[in-house]
Amino acid sequence: MPEMLEGKKIVVLAGGVGGSRLVRGMSHHLEGHQLTVIVNTGDDFTHCGLHISPDIDTVLYHLAGLAHVERGWGIHNDTFHCMDALKWLGGETWFNIGDRDLATHLLRTQLLQRGHTLTEVTAYMARNLGILHAVLPMSDDACRTMLDTDEGILEFQNYFVRQHWQPAIRRIFWQGAESARPTTAVMQALRSADLLVIAPSNPFVSVAPILQLPGVKEAVSALPVIAMSPIIGGMAVKGPAAKMFRELLGKPASVEAVVDFYDGLLDGLVMDEVDADLLPALQTKVKHVSAMPTLMLTAEKQVEAAGQFLHFAQSLLPDLVDESVREA
Amino acid sequence: MPEMLEGKKIVVLAGGVGGSRLVRGMSHHLEGHQLTVIVNTGDDFTHCGLHISPDIDTVLYHLAGLAHVERGWGIHNDTFHCMDALKWLGGETWFNIGDRDLATHLLRTQLLQRGHTLTEVTAYMARNLGILHAVLPMSDDACRTMLDTDEGILEFQNYFVRQHWQPAIRRIFWQGAESARPTTAVMQALRSADLLVIAPSNPFVSVAPILQLPGVKEAVSALPVIAMSPIIGGMAVKGPAAKMFRELLGKPASVEAVVDFYDGLLDGLVMDEVDADLLPALQTKVKHVSAMPTLMLTAEKQVEAAGQFLHFAQSLLPDLVDESVREA
Repeated sequence: MPEMLEGKKIVVLAGGVGGSRLVRGMSHHLEGHQLTVIVNTGDDFTHCGLHISPDIDTVLYHLAGLAHVERGWGIHNDTFHCMDALKWLGGETWFNIGDRDLATHLLRTQLLQRGHTLTEVTAYMARNLGILHAVLPMSDDACRTMLDTDEGILEFQNYFVRQHWQPAIRRIFWQGAESARPTTAVMQALRSADLLVIAPSNPFVSVAPILQLPGVKEAVSALPVIAMSPIIGGMAVKGPAAKMFRELLGKPASVEAVVDFYDGLLDGLVMDEVDADLLPALQTKVKHVSAMPTLMLTAEKQVEAAGQFLHFAQSLLPDLVDESVREA
Repeated sequence: MPEMLEGKKIVVLAGGVGGSRLVRGMSHHLEGHQLTVIVNTGDDFTHCGLHISPDIDTVLYHLAGLAHVERGWGIHNDTFHCMDALKWLGGETWFNIGDRDLATHLLRTQLLQRGHTLTEVTAYMARNLGILHAVLPMSDDACRTMLDTDEGILEFQNYFVRQHWQPAIRRIFWQGAESARPTTAVMQALRSADLLVIAPSNPFVSVAPILQLPGVKEAVSALPVIAMSPIIGGMAVKGPAAKMFRELLGKPASVEAVVDFYDGLLDGLVMDEVDADLLPALQTKVKHVSAMPTLMLTAEKQVEAAGQFLHFAQSLLPDLVDESVREA
């Protein structure tokens, strides 16, 4: 459907797996210049001397068609010889890295050390991977997601991977937030966008890190915003999103809780068909709501779900634009 | 021959491939406490954020039986998936690293960043690899071999690997030499040694970096010293040693040139059987000279050559000790 949303520019706020799946699907329906992905870098960390940007990698691998689709992270058909050797050398192997995946971390680390920005490095890699759509790190500054838990303050990857997101969270904050800024490219993309999409990523640790950057929430508010719910039938497809609703907000995870989290930001909402009975309740909170299949566990489902999502967006975009103009 | 050199402590000064081959052979004849290898770290460099110690790695891999024997560097049967991926990502691949080999660099980098010394890291890895003999970096301080060439000043790996040692050298110096010190472990090993062996490594860039550290040459001079010539029939087995004799000293490479390079330090010399006709001439410069097969391109040859070398050393050790005492 290349005529769909013709000439419109769509910006997606995305984390890792959930965001990548939608974005990969959307990339089949949109021209290169139509789609820009702003990616969370709150998960970034340094491991064995390497600068690792898990969410950027996941987005790049999905857009390049290299992703391990079922697993969500890493490269399809990768080997793990380095990790095996690290084990017999007596090293830590809690953060599993495939041999081909390692190349991304090596190159990123080298280019950053030479003074390139994360934005430049990401664009360089995307180009070499044949990716046509823009992938933008939310910031070139360090802004690390930290979790205040019942086991102390943990860096994101420590909580997420090493501790399998089991510690109970009391609070989330960002180390470096006082000086971290969104990049110029991010702000330009937001200013020239016709539609903002919030991907079905974890609201607390994938989308919130982007929104908390100075000026981003304001720029997003000025746009028509449509979200795809990361909660399906009260559960997260992957990861700790549902657990975080309980621990941080004291309520069960639900599509409604997602809408409340975004606090008036949403003009449209797509939720999974299994939650269709929530439609009446949600329509009191969001003007445009639709239920459709949103599970995207195969490449085909990604293309299908993204197509339906964009169709929904297209159908109500004139409305949304009118409303934005009226509100402004 | 476990009774050979019983109770004697042997310290070897070694670089990468040549040194590793002799040391690997010697490890078959000597108990764990009898053999200590002091390894050149002038080749160390940082690449893609990783601290790489090529000579230490080569020694460790040889002693652990993991080395790619014919090639000299890296791990036997390693794969190169990371390097392949780095190529399509647009990265530099002039320094080739196998996937398993990478684990060594990752672990070393991580442990160094946590504040461990290179000596501690090397000992930890050696233990985990089941190595019984001591492997000591010459220094825990950075002391980088730099080459002043007709293409400008080059770091060692840049000259050696990237430029295939083709630039002509005018001068060699060590960056960090003013503050680099040999480790306590190195000085203790030298003080308690009964015999010092200079491996058939490159005199200019493998052995000289060790000898130039404060106090090392003096400690070595106090010991009986036997070298195995790295020059065979006027040529280096591998690498730029022969070329360096021409460029830096203005003379062709020869066993005699090796002896001259070590400038009175040698009490004994082992050269290859192909150079046997040089025996009379060399005996005017070094008291104890022997010709034997020294090419060690297979594991069997390494054990054989090291055995013959140690046999020679054993036969003249009483003499050498007497001479050392007389000279002192």
